[in-house]
Amino acid sequence: MAEDQLSTFVSLCRRRGFLFGGSELYGGLSSIWDYGPLGAKMKKRIKDIWWDEYVEKREDIVGLDSSIIMHEDVFRASGHLEGFNDVLVDCPKCKRRFRIDKIEKFGTNLYRCPDCKTEIDTRQQKPRTFNLMFKTNMSAIEETPVYGYLRPETAQGIFVNFMNVLNTTHKKIPFGIAQIGKAFRNEVTTGSFIFRMKEFEQMEIEYFVRPEEAMSAYEHWVKNRLQFYLEHMGIEESNLRLREHGPDELAHYAKACTDIEFRFPFGWSELEGVAHRADFDLREHGRVSKKDLSYFDSVKEERFVPNVIEPSSGVDRTFFAVLCNAYRKEEVKGRPRVYLKLKDTLAPFRAAVFPLLKKEPQLVELAKNIFYDIKKSMPAVYDDTASIGKLYRRQDEIGTPFCITVDMESLSDRKVTVRDRDSMAQERVEIDRVEEYLSERRK
Amino acid sequence: MAEDQLSTFVSLCRRRGFLFGGSELYGGLSSIWDYGPLGAKMKKRIKDIWWDEYVEKREDIVGLDSSIIMHEDVFRASGHLEGFNDVLVDCPKCKRRFRIDKIEKFGTNLYRCPDCKTEIDTRQQKPRTFNLMFKTNMSAIEETPVYGYLRPETAQGIFVNFMNVLNTTHKKIPFGIAQIGKAFRNEVTTGSFIFRMKEFEQMEIEYFVRPEEAMSAYEHWVKNRLQFYLEHMGIEESNLRLREHGPDELAHYAKACTDIEFRFPFGWSELEGVAHRADFDLREHGRVSKKDLSYFDSVKEERFVPNVIEPSSGVDRTFFAVLCNAYRKEEVKGRPRVYLKLKDTLAPFRAAVFPLLKKEPQLVELAKNIFYDIKKSMPAVYDDTASIGKLYRRQDEIGTPFCITVDMESLSDRKVTVRDRDSMAQERVEIDRVEEYLSERRK
Repeated sequence: MAEDQLSTFVSLCRRRGFLFGGSELYGGLSSIWDYGPLGAKMKKRIKDIWWDEYVEKREDIVGLDSSIIMHEDVFRASGHLEGFNDVLVDCPKCKRRFRIDKIEKFGTNLYRCPDCKTEIDTRQQKPRTFNLMFKTNMSAIEETPVYGYLRPETAQGIFVNFMNVLNTTHKKIPFGIAQIGKAFRNEVTTGSFIFRMKEFEQMEIEYFVRPEEAMSAYEHWVKNRLQFYLEHMGIEESNLRLREHGPDELAHYAKACTDIEFRFPFGWSELEGVAHRADFDLREHGRVSKKDLSYFDSVKEERFVPNVIEPSSGVDRTFFAVLCNAYRKEEVKGRPRVYLKLKDTLAPFRAAVFPLLKKEPQLVELAKNIFYDIKKSMPAVYDDTASIGKLYRRQDEIGTPFCITVDMESLSDRKVTVRDRDSMAQERVEIDRVEEYLSERRK
Repeated sequence: MAEDQLSTFVSLCRRRGFLFGGSELYGGLSSIWDYGPLGAKMKKRIKDIWWDEYVEKREDIVGLDSSIIMHEDVFRASGHLEGFNDVLVDCPKCKRRFRIDKIEKFGTNLYRCPDCKTEIDTRQQKPRTFNLMFKTNMSAIEETPVYGYLRPETAQGIFVNFMNVLNTTHKKIPFGIAQIGKAFRNEVTTGSFIFRMKEFEQMEIEYFVRPEEAMSAYEHWVKNRLQFYLEHMGIEESNLRLREHGPDELAHYAKACTDIEFRFPFGWSELEGVAHRADFDLREHGRVSKKDLSYFDSVKEERFVPNVIEPSSGVDRTFFAVLCNAYRKEEVKGRPRVYLKLKDTLAPFRAAVFPLLKKEPQLVELAKNIFYDIKKSMPAVYDDTASIGKLYRRQDEIGTPFCITVDMESLSDRKVTVRDRDSMAQERVEIDRVEEYLSERRK
């Protein structure tokens, strides 16, 4: 999708009920979004496919669902309390606030406001360090607060439960723990639709391996996760690329990291990071908690702290990428047509059923019967609230692969018109064969 | 389950990986729990069944997935900011803090500490009002905070999106909006395992109706939701009851409310509340936001603020109830046997496969092949990390309906032993017929 299409695309997402602004009835909260009826459906499909692929299908990965609010010491050990900061500076003129690493610098102490272009002298405008974690008082008394933190990543819930999982599942290394859940970061940079949000959702795996097998496991996971987007999310190869972090970009403890990038309307950006985190997480949690988080290999009779490979995917970014990738705008007989070329496993509905004429009770009845029948085996929608042309456009815009129209002839020949979303080709299909027809034409 | 079995039950939940204490590596956070590998699976099954039943199968209900952090004005309108309070008092001697409405009172100003039995005189020990919502600073600057609130119920996300949903889905009243998600309450009362948690998950429907149809819709929903627990959660009728709120118990705006109660180990307690909230929510949000949240009925040419029926279920309480309901302890040949009589749609695994002897490569190979085969059509687990008796006990304790054991004879007669969780009956079944055998014996 081209950058100039982004605003049309965002308005489609709002108009069709994929996304609404968070608390927008009250003016909204910046960088917080709600998933509407279609968005909620599609987001759930994405999460279910991931969970099925990694937790249900594999024997070497187990699931977890840990809490959002966590103990302060968790983030002392993880380094978030100390180091998860942005450095911010205020423009003296327009008073807007910016991340100092994101704005233009010239000279030793001078920056330029990206909005009003005023010079910002950091000897006058002192930059301030700001922790990105949301904290909340868990004590019942305001004056003696005891802070809990909203996790900034689901990963920490996995690390602190490593021993619990090991002891209860009898898993042997290599094995992984997978989790889907909300995470929170008080990002100042707002923007780019749902790309960077204060409240977002992650799908993370921590895969524990022997140190000497970590590098090959890392390489395996980069490939595996790239394949996931191609195969299960239907993202085109030309819209994905791998970008390995250079030595200057890597966290001090990380041995390697590769971003899986998607070609967003505003440029190539991270969809997922696959990181080789060595033994940093378990070692630090072991050190701070004073518990032994090492693993005993009973075959090799050897004790060690496992290395960890972390494929960390953003649910919202995947959702965004899937929609961008599917977005098509073309001209049909001099008029614009917009449709979403979604995989049918991801589309909110696999089929839509309409009566050609709403005022004909026989048509409505037959259309509803077909709808109820189809609905038993796939997500489907019935609609008769507009003209047929409008109904087609509606379904195109939400990516429904097939529309089934019942007309007067259907009453006698027991056939319906099935229209293909992508080619717009229409075919008469016997009512009894519709389901079979659709299942032969998976998208 | 009897009350004295609760601690054994909790230890089973921990030992088998259903639940772990939140942040317990660091001493834990009170009333916060993590779902372990089996708990995460079963919790997801509960949510999926609910979502499927209400969002995917029905045409009159759509889904939503709104944010956890919401605008302060949302809770100004809902009344939570003003009225969602506990009144707390401290014991002067043991310093513990209690909800004043939960402890013994005698005389005009005197209470008794439930722990150390000291008298608490509220003329000296001033009770304090304490809001149950967690708030967090969303501004980047500590000194000029802008508070967002972690929603204390998912319902508010539905109300503030009422118009968004109406405008994008073209739904006509009656229709509902359904949502599953986390909610947060800074409860001082701790305890009773996962019954009352600071971080919990809800499955809520707001069903919008014409005022004159509200009472019959309310009655319908009470029955519908009771049936859900019986039919889909497998809870026995004798463990469920309806309790209608008396006039003194009802919120001032509510017309009626019925709790669906479950017989928890500590007594009958709320599993779900089904409330007739009249037009309170939409009216108040309309008033505070100064937006028109009324509905226009185009057939009757009439404008009105819809009434709402709210079936509000706790995911964690349902999870807890399902486990309690399934918990069985019996004596077999003089030894105790514990098993979970779970519905097979809820059990973490539908079948387990073992080789009788781990040291026989042929048995292991055959067992694994059977396992991989079965796993294509149902959640299954392979285990060879203990003796057969221990493996049976393990699967009993996690509610796996069937265990399949491969022995030396299996190599020649191509049959395996299938053991039934509930009756412990064992039957030789042809390997090729195992799947069919299991599907004929749904639990």
